Amino acid sequence: MTRPLRLSTLFLRTLREDPADAELPGHKLLVRAGYIRRAAPGIYSWMPLGLRVLRKVERIVREEMDAIGGQELSFPALLPREPYEATNRWTEYGPNLFRLHDRKGVDMLLGPTHEEMFTLAVKDMFSSYKELPLTLYQIQTKYRDEARPRAGLLRGREFIMKDSYSFDVGDDGLDEAYQRHREAYIKMFDRLGFDYVIVHADSGAMGGSASEEFLAVSPVGEDTFVRCEASGYAANVEAVVVPRAPAVDEATVAATPAAHVEDTPDSPTIATLVSQADALHPRSDGRGWTAADTLKNVVVLLTHPDGSTEPLAIGLPGDRDVDAKRLEAQVAPADWRPFEAADFAAYPMLAKGYIGPGVLGEERSSGIRYLLDPSVAEGSAWVTGADEHGKHVFDLVLGRDFTADGTIQAGEIREGDPSPDGAGPLTLARGIEMGHIFQLGRKYAEALDLKVLDENGKLVTVTMGSYGVGVSRAVAAVAEATHDELGLVWPRELAPADVHVVATGKDAAVFDHAGGLVDQLAAEGVEVIYDDRPKVSPGVKFKDAELLGVPTIVVVGKGLADGVLELKDRRTGERQDVPVDAAVEQILAAVRPGA
Amino acid sequence: MTRPLRLSTLFLRTLREDPADAELPGHKLLVRAGYIRRAAPGIYSWMPLGLRVLRKVERIVREEMDAIGGQELSFPALLPREPYEATNRWTEYGPNLFRLHDRKGVDMLLGPTHEEMFTLAVKDMFSSYKELPLTLYQIQTKYRDEARPRAGLLRGREFIMKDSYSFDVGDDGLDEAYQRHREAYIKMFDRLGFDYVIVHADSGAMGGSASEEFLAVSPVGEDTFVRCEASGYAANVEAVVVPRAPAVDEATVAATPAAHVEDTPDSPTIATLVSQADALHPRSDGRGWTAADTLKNVVVLLTHPDGSTEPLAIGLPGDRDVDAKRLEAQVAPADWRPFEAADFAAYPMLAKGYIGPGVLGEERSSGIRYLLDPSVAEGSAWVTGADEHGKHVFDLVLGRDFTADGTIQAGEIREGDPSPDGAGPLTLARGIEMGHIFQLGRKYAEALDLKVLDENGKLVTVTMGSYGVGVSRAVAAVAEATHDELGLVWPRELAPADVHVVATGKDAAVFDHAGGLVDQLAAEGVEVIYDDRPKVSPGVKFKDAELLGVPTIVVVGKGLADGVLELKDRRTGERQDVPVDAAVEQILAAVRPGA
Repeated sequence: MTRPLRLSTLFLRTLREDPADAELPGHKLLVRAGYIRRAAPGIYSWMPLGLRVLRKVERIVREEMDAIGGQELSFPALLPREPYEATNRWTEYGPNLFRLHDRKGVDMLLGPTHEEMFTLAVKDMFSSYKELPLTLYQIQTKYRDEARPRAGLLRGREFIMKDSYSFDVGDDGLDEAYQRHREAYIKMFDRLGFDYVIVHADSGAMGGSASEEFLAVSPVGEDTFVRCEASGYAANVEAVVVPRAPAVDEATVAATPAAHVEDTPDSPTIATLVSQADALHPRSDGRGWTAADTLKNVVVLLTHPDGSTEPLAIGLPGDRDVDAKRLEAQVAPADWRPFEAADFAAYPMLAKGYIGPGVLGEERSSGIRYLLDPSVAEGSAWVTGADEHGKHVFDLVLGRDFTADGTIQAGEIREGDPSPDGAGPLTLARGIEMGHIFQLGRKYAEALDLKVLDENGKLVTVTMGSYGVGVSRAVAAVAEATHDELGLVWPRELAPADVHVVATGKDAAVFDHAGGLVDQLAAEGVEVIYDDRPKVSPGVKFKDAELLGVPTIVVVGKGLADGVLELKDRRTGERQDVPVDAAVEQILAAVRPGA
Repeated sequence: MTRPLRLSTLFLRTLREDPADAELPGHKLLVRAGYIRRAAPGIYSWMPLGLRVLRKVERIVREEMDAIGGQELSFPALLPREPYEATNRWTEYGPNLFRLHDRKGVDMLLGPTHEEMFTLAVKDMFSSYKELPLTLYQIQTKYRDEARPRAGLLRGREFIMKDSYSFDVGDDGLDEAYQRHREAYIKMFDRLGFDYVIVHADSGAMGGSASEEFLAVSPVGEDTFVRCEASGYAANVEAVVVPRAPAVDEATVAATPAAHVEDTPDSPTIATLVSQADALHPRSDGRGWTAADTLKNVVVLLTHPDGSTEPLAIGLPGDRDVDAKRLEAQVAPADWRPFEAADFAAYPMLAKGYIGPGVLGEERSSGIRYLLDPSVAEGSAWVTGADEHGKHVFDLVLGRDFTADGTIQAGEIREGDPSPDGAGPLTLARGIEMGHIFQLGRKYAEALDLKVLDENGKLVTVTMGSYGVGVSRAVAAVAEATHDELGLVWPRELAPADVHVVATGKDAAVFDHAGGLVDQLAAEGVEVIYDDRPKVSPGVKFKDAELLGVPTIVVVGKGLADGVLELKDRRTGERQDVPVDAAVEQILAAVRPGA
């Protein structure tokens, strides 16, 4: 027996208009269909139908975690500072961490993830290798003060996550725990019902080694990932490691003319430079200069979590931009922003628009660390800034005429770029990060001194993995992936109900029959939304049913006089008339296709 | 099929010693049995077994709320300031509210209760009387920065509450919603399995009218309540309204001598005063002076939520103290503390130890508001301070010789005091506040402008009720109510498992048999804790079983050779040998006594 939800009393108001503050179609529909409501930027309330979907996601996650022996517990969201101080995350998290004082002035925080708490709990309770392996998890509300909360539940400031942690005595154990999670995640995401891809991931601020993300493939995703059809390689764009270009052969370098400075008036951009380069200094090989022949030097300002700042210069071919997210991943936990007028003022040797390797590098006049894109080969010749307004230098050869302090993986990755494994070209697509599995290694165990006795009675540091699933985000991701122009289209396992029964017209017999059907279905354990609103037109009722997105819609209306009901599949739009006597049986078959 | 919990792998460590930071026996046991762990003062983590109990409490609460048509939703814990500003609670909550700034400096708070959010949601979604009545609820983590977090889960700073709100168009509707909740709470608390009493409650800072509390009767409770056997009257001590004592008849007043000041050296206390009063000025009726004949004037300092302060003087018979909690309830949302040396310095007309009505009152020299206990009758004569060190005044008659600014319900209530309904004497006991039902009326709806159209198309303000249950607190209250000297003793509906199977000794056949039994029980849907630890002594296993408190304990051990297992009832201690063949059946009968 499952209590039916009657629309005459359900706390629900559907909207015909898109909400002003929603950007993505799935988000708009979740608000229009009354599943969620915005309480503050990046903070949402769950209305009755939304909460049902959320609970179903939680159930799937819980079942798959239990199946790999995960043990559920629940840590507080409001936490003391000390453990996060010990791992330096109190500082590293920067402004993303919600910090507060209690009435005694004690520093506290709202937990963004709980590595510290889990590590300390295991340290306190377990002491021997015999008690490991161990996998603990929680499904819990977390907090991150995102600079740009986005798209409702997709990037919120208060959100629900499953976070789990594995504890092992050695790297092999960690590998196994990682694989177990990987398989559990595959089952979980298969059940959630959207296309996803598993990509190599940058480990970001978390520190550690092996790391993969589960991305819901979606044009509205915030993450860009690459795939190589030939090899199956897939990676988050932040995690792509562009191989170092092979050095230019010595003969070619020897044949390159000596570097020479030319007047290039009014050419502070690559485009303006290239447009006049042929006239100024034709290439010896006869083909014209292109942006790819120029070396662009981009200067940014890093802000470290402790508030200190540091400039950084990046040299890369002029036809390629710095990728904001790749750079972010490389400099984390620092933030970065482009150099601004005030920054240039502090470094007068930087001629804006004409910056070159002559002043860049820790050993040169600016003292600014200078890193090159790996595609800039040793021995390659470039047109680049001559550090004087209106002047560029030509035939400047890396290794012969200039050097840098190292390389950086911050240049953009483009469709058709070679796969790092050499197997073929890359394609690009976008995705929503739904899960992250991650070999933390010993970072947290070392910081918090989590050791156990091994077989020989020796204290060894425990190895840990950390594994996350965006539970509230999954509701949004499914909405984005499965909606159509009429409304939400829930996969059966997540739908707020199994069946949406619509009674139309004013005929009491229709409502009597529909009510009886609803009771019969409820008695069978079927979850029913029943549109029993007496004075609402059939058109509005049908529109609401499409909008709410329950997989099976049953219409009890005019057909009843002829002994038939209408069954409609929300996803396919397929309709069929069903004799009244066979209705329950056919609805059950639709609701439980496997049974 | 329910996955058994094997103690060989369960994330659990039981402690033989009481934790240093636990005061109450139930709290000590919850920590010792590994159900909860302290993360910070008043903030606890739920370990696997504790979380199971918590979820069962939640289920009971949810079922009873659903049964009265409550609709579950979930609001954020991190909230914007504005709605709480509109109702003045941003200020009124004082230091009990966790406040913080986000990265943009915007004021936010951690929700203590959610009247505002519910009111605004209904305002936004519903607009007609036809959509009411409506009952909404959530089971959610809440935050209050308690000055004195206490006894683990009993008074925490992060805790789980069910809060629900009813919305109606008129007072009759509110009464019905209130009654529905009252009945649901009775069912809920009956299922939770502890003694409770429903008492009239002070509404405290919430504002509003009818209000009752469900108190778990417990010697460790923070709340004192009174009962009158004869009438069934029961009230929180804060809610007891002592009737005003009838005026003394005129003849008696006329016969009272004129007030006269006497030297009473070294008598700054009631005891020192009474001990010398007979010698100084014998009573005309011949019986000696007692503390009850003296009028004690207590001065306190109120601190309002906005930080402003104000003194208050309370006059009451010298044999009765001010009750801290009754005073707190009367002055809320202000806090109070006793007058200190610096306060006295600011009011030189107050002669400490000899303060009398001569300087008290808004119209007199101190200007301090002066309120009398209702037991101080008009026309009654008193010995009280003469506002000069070493002097008291005798035969000072209320109405003739002095007046006050009103009365206050702040004097202590004592065993044997008359019931306010006049039906007989009161008895006192202590309890833990587990639930609170409360007719809010129109306070929040007015502050946030929640109106709907009534039958006549006129806008009317909605009436609201607010209803809370301490969900995490219930786990603690049950632990306090049901434990014994050996450990926890869970009622069946809350226990983390139905059966605790202990395999003892080293015999492989024992473990094989126990494992098979566990699998059979699990297949029947029975929740089992299985102590399969290979190298732990039977004594330790039995102790742990008693400590964990699962209602049915099954021992598979030496008896197996004779074809018997031992069944033990944790609560009664009753043991019985059961033939191996009948074991599953008998265990099922014990686990499902009604089935």
